[in-house]
Amino acid sequence: MPKQVDHQERRHQIAEALCALAGRQGLDAVTLRHVAAEAGVSMGRVQHYFTTKDEMLLFAFRAISDRVEQRIGEAVAREGANPSTRAVLRALLAEMLPLSPQAKAEAPVLLAFLARAVVEPALAVSLREGGTGLREFVAEKIRAAGGPLDPMREAVTLLAVVDGLMTQMLVGYTDADTAVATLDYHLDRIFAGDHHAS
Amino acid sequence: MPKQVDHQERRHQIAEALCALAGRQGLDAVTLRHVAAEAGVSMGRVQHYFTTKDEMLLFAFRAISDRVEQRIGEAVAREGANPSTRAVLRALLAEMLPLSPQAKAEAPVLLAFLARAVVEPALAVSLREGGTGLREFVAEKIRAAGGPLDPMREAVTLLAVVDGLMTQMLVGYTDADTAVATLDYHLDRIFAGDHHAS
Repeated sequence: MPKQVDHQERRHQIAEALCALAGRQGLDAVTLRHVAAEAGVSMGRVQHYFTTKDEMLLFAFRAISDRVEQRIGEAVAREGANPSTRAVLRALLAEMLPLSPQAKAEAPVLLAFLARAVVEPALAVSLREGGTGLREFVAEKIRAAGGPLDPMREAVTLLAVVDGLMTQMLVGYTDADTAVATLDYHLDRIFAGDHHAS
Repeated sequence: MPKQVDHQERRHQIAEALCALAGRQGLDAVTLRHVAAEAGVSMGRVQHYFTTKDEMLLFAFRAISDRVEQRIGEAVAREGANPSTRAVLRALLAEMLPLSPQAKAEAPVLLAFLARAVVEPALAVSLREGGTGLREFVAEKIRAAGGPLDPMREAVTLLAVVDGLMTQMLVGYTDADTAVATLDYHLDRIFAGDHHAS
């Protein structure tokens, strides 16, 4: 195996350990020492790859973001050759909710990362870039579908609904069925309004 | 001053210090030692009132919740004797966004508390109770207004929009104007739909 791939794999292995630890015990438990123990490697090995906790967090956040993006692409592809705008957006947004075992494991880390980004500007930059890109993608889909909708307002609202449902699911006062039904209810109203008006 | 009031004031003084600290440096910085230093009291004094960090957090969360509830009551009262359902909900929901200096200072603590509640069931109970109560209040307002809306679906969606906008504002990729305009856009559609149908 080439050495470069090996390094990348080790970083991913450490990021996985961080996710497992943060998911079980929260971000407080994420220290270089605890992550090393969880990954079954030495402290020195962790420090070789990551100098600070925030560096580790940023790497884990990017790894999760890449996975989510890949799953979104797969979910959209499953909608077939000419999916409706509603079907594309539903596939995308449902993938952002903690519904699958993988997304459930990632969500607490994303939320912890969010809370940390509020006080750590370097982390907030990554979130802003991801959030802005996603918003533009959603707005563009709505724009391309035509109709009387305000694409940017709809995009901001849709992503806010999903962000809100995610945190409510994590805290346990919205269950998966309610979250999915709420998303469908909201999409129905958007696209029913579009249909009536056009 | 009666001794009981004095105790309550001290607890609040410590909670204020916790909020200031968490708002500046995140929850990682919140240790009994750091909170004591921030409040200008001894470690022993803090430990007299709070045994663990989670106990302090829960007290601070409840103190913030009480203040938010009071501000919501005042905002709704400012709408006059017979406010429309839209006006009541707008006053309530706008108060949940980090718009005022006070709400801006509280929001990072609420988000940190949220992230912590995901891995600490004792904290999640308080969030669930507050969230469920708020949801029922909003649903009841919509139900009382009549019309074709599904009160519970609308309540869940509205509160998810506000929760999502709050986190987006904190991370800095939604500004205050966009958040308020998004809330108004969403309320307009809900109540315009109601108007057309009834």
